Amino acid sequence: MTGHPKAAVCVLGTGLIGGSVLRAAAAAGYQAWGFNRSESGAQAARADGYDVVSDAEAALRRAAERDALIVVGVPMPALDTVLSDVKSFAPDCVLTDVVSVKAPVAAAVHRHELSAHFVGGHPMAGTSESGWAASSPDLFKNAVWALSVDAGVKADPWTRVARLALDCGSMVVPVLAEEHDRAVARISHLPHVLAEALAIEGAAGGKLALGLAAGSFRDGTRVAATAPDLVRAICEPNAAALLEVLDDTLRVLTAARDSLRDTDSLADLTRAGHDGRTDYEDTRPWAITGIRPGDHDWLAKLAEAGRRGGVLESLD
Amino acid sequence: MTGHPKAAVCVLGTGLIGGSVLRAAAAAGYQAWGFNRSESGAQAARADGYDVVSDAEAALRRAAERDALIVVGVPMPALDTVLSDVKSFAPDCVLTDVVSVKAPVAAAVHRHELSAHFVGGHPMAGTSESGWAASSPDLFKNAVWALSVDAGVKADPWTRVARLALDCGSMVVPVLAEEHDRAVARISHLPHVLAEALAIEGAAGGKLALGLAAGSFRDGTRVAATAPDLVRAICEPNAAALLEVLDDTLRVLTAARDSLRDTDSLADLTRAGHDGRTDYEDTRPWAITGIRPGDHDWLAKLAEAGRRGGVLESLD
Repeated sequence: MTGHPKAAVCVLGTGLIGGSVLRAAAAAGYQAWGFNRSESGAQAARADGYDVVSDAEAALRRAAERDALIVVGVPMPALDTVLSDVKSFAPDCVLTDVVSVKAPVAAAVHRHELSAHFVGGHPMAGTSESGWAASSPDLFKNAVWALSVDAGVKADPWTRVARLALDCGSMVVPVLAEEHDRAVARISHLPHVLAEALAIEGAAGGKLALGLAAGSFRDGTRVAATAPDLVRAICEPNAAALLEVLDDTLRVLTAARDSLRDTDSLADLTRAGHDGRTDYEDTRPWAITGIRPGDHDWLAKLAEAGRRGGVLESLD
Repeated sequence: MTGHPKAAVCVLGTGLIGGSVLRAAAAAGYQAWGFNRSESGAQAARADGYDVVSDAEAALRRAAERDALIVVGVPMPALDTVLSDVKSFAPDCVLTDVVSVKAPVAAAVHRHELSAHFVGGHPMAGTSESGWAASSPDLFKNAVWALSVDAGVKADPWTRVARLALDCGSMVVPVLAEEHDRAVARISHLPHVLAEALAIEGAAGGKLALGLAAGSFRDGTRVAATAPDLVRAICEPNAAALLEVLDDTLRVLTAARDSLRDTDSLADLTRAGHDGRTDYEDTRPWAITGIRPGDHDWLAKLAEAGRRGGVLESLD
């Protein structure tokens, strides 16, 4: 059944994101099963009627037998262990991941000699909750799902992974791993860092400040409710890109502080910030058409389209 | 009809906040009318059935005749003009305001020799929209409404303003002007500054970054959609308190940057940020009872209760 688009999906790690992939894939008609390292997590999934075990070898041998698409959904610190198991028990399966950062995952996949069938991925969705209990088959509906078009990616695996993302209800953004990592430093990792800082400053104001807090503080600190270890697992592997954007943020905030101190004015900050938010609100994805996986130069063409805000809404 | 709790309310400035006070007061059974400097704004309110004129003198002479409670709802830059009109046409009315920052408003009121019947106020509610069109009678439902208990505030005006806030559906937080201003620098003005910075950094990533942006960026930049002039009018008058908290934020972010650069770790930031957000989520107002306006030491007692997270839910 090689190549059959809805053959089978094996999800490794059934937390918020992996669990949601498992649910969404099953809802879309895939044969889907999973592995979760903690037996209690696996049990929770089984209690909801999903086929999840805490035995990686069993899940992966079945993946090898059925030519399943393997989806790695564990946080970065657990990646090496899981890839080592994939190498041992299902080295020829198509492999993707839903881990935040892309270049370090690709490097790990390379170290484990699993690059041949690998396509890195990152669905841009989440909540401040985590674990199977927070997972949902609708998490990826109308979201964007970044998919690597780096040199060496092959058309067949790419198509299979893209089809899963589309079947989960997402639009596919083709992107180079390094460009992805620099982009998410700005729109996913920096929001985490600033939310943590805002939560710290609010709490330093004591009960009076926290009691007066309204919508702007609530929304601005929402993602600070995420478990600290999970934030670290998301942000720290992207340190190089995050450091660059953090340095720039410190420059922007220092300039605003100096302007407020020296001229009583936040004019530049508020104008540029409003422009940035307006750009964001005006951002509309446009449908990439006419580039088929496997066509001449398809990887470079898709990368260029993604860079300009294009998305794949179908594979036809 | 002096002292009758629902006698009359005159709102000066019928934008988002003032307009919502007018709607909420009318819905609660007050005789309520308003003034708006722009005739088009006044007309919009009249089209919705509210009694709003663009003639300050007319609105204020009526306030003087009917012993109305005057609510100043104009942004800081328009404050002096409006207070000058109040001094000319209705100097003996009870006066409150719904402007963000409290010490500068109190100073302006003092300059206009209107302190005798003044009680500064600040309902902690808003949206990123502005103007009459965005106003709502429900904006203050279940919100907190800060009310000055500074030295010199008299019991009768205080009771009247507190009753209006309660009738708008809010809980009243008694607070000293300076403590209020330091608190809102942390939970209202800093969120604006950080949202602007985040919007700037996201937009600098171009279409790819903005196209990949999801919930954390959307929520983290929400208030950057506020008109720049309005953000400036809210934040700049609180420059002293905001500078203090901005300096501290720069220290926190610089420490996080250094830690990420030198040890690949965001452990301290994420732990402290999560603790802060948890403190916020665990914050529950408790009802102040047994302190009646006019009692011995009532101002100091209310200030101390507010400092510890207490709110007034009724005046009985």
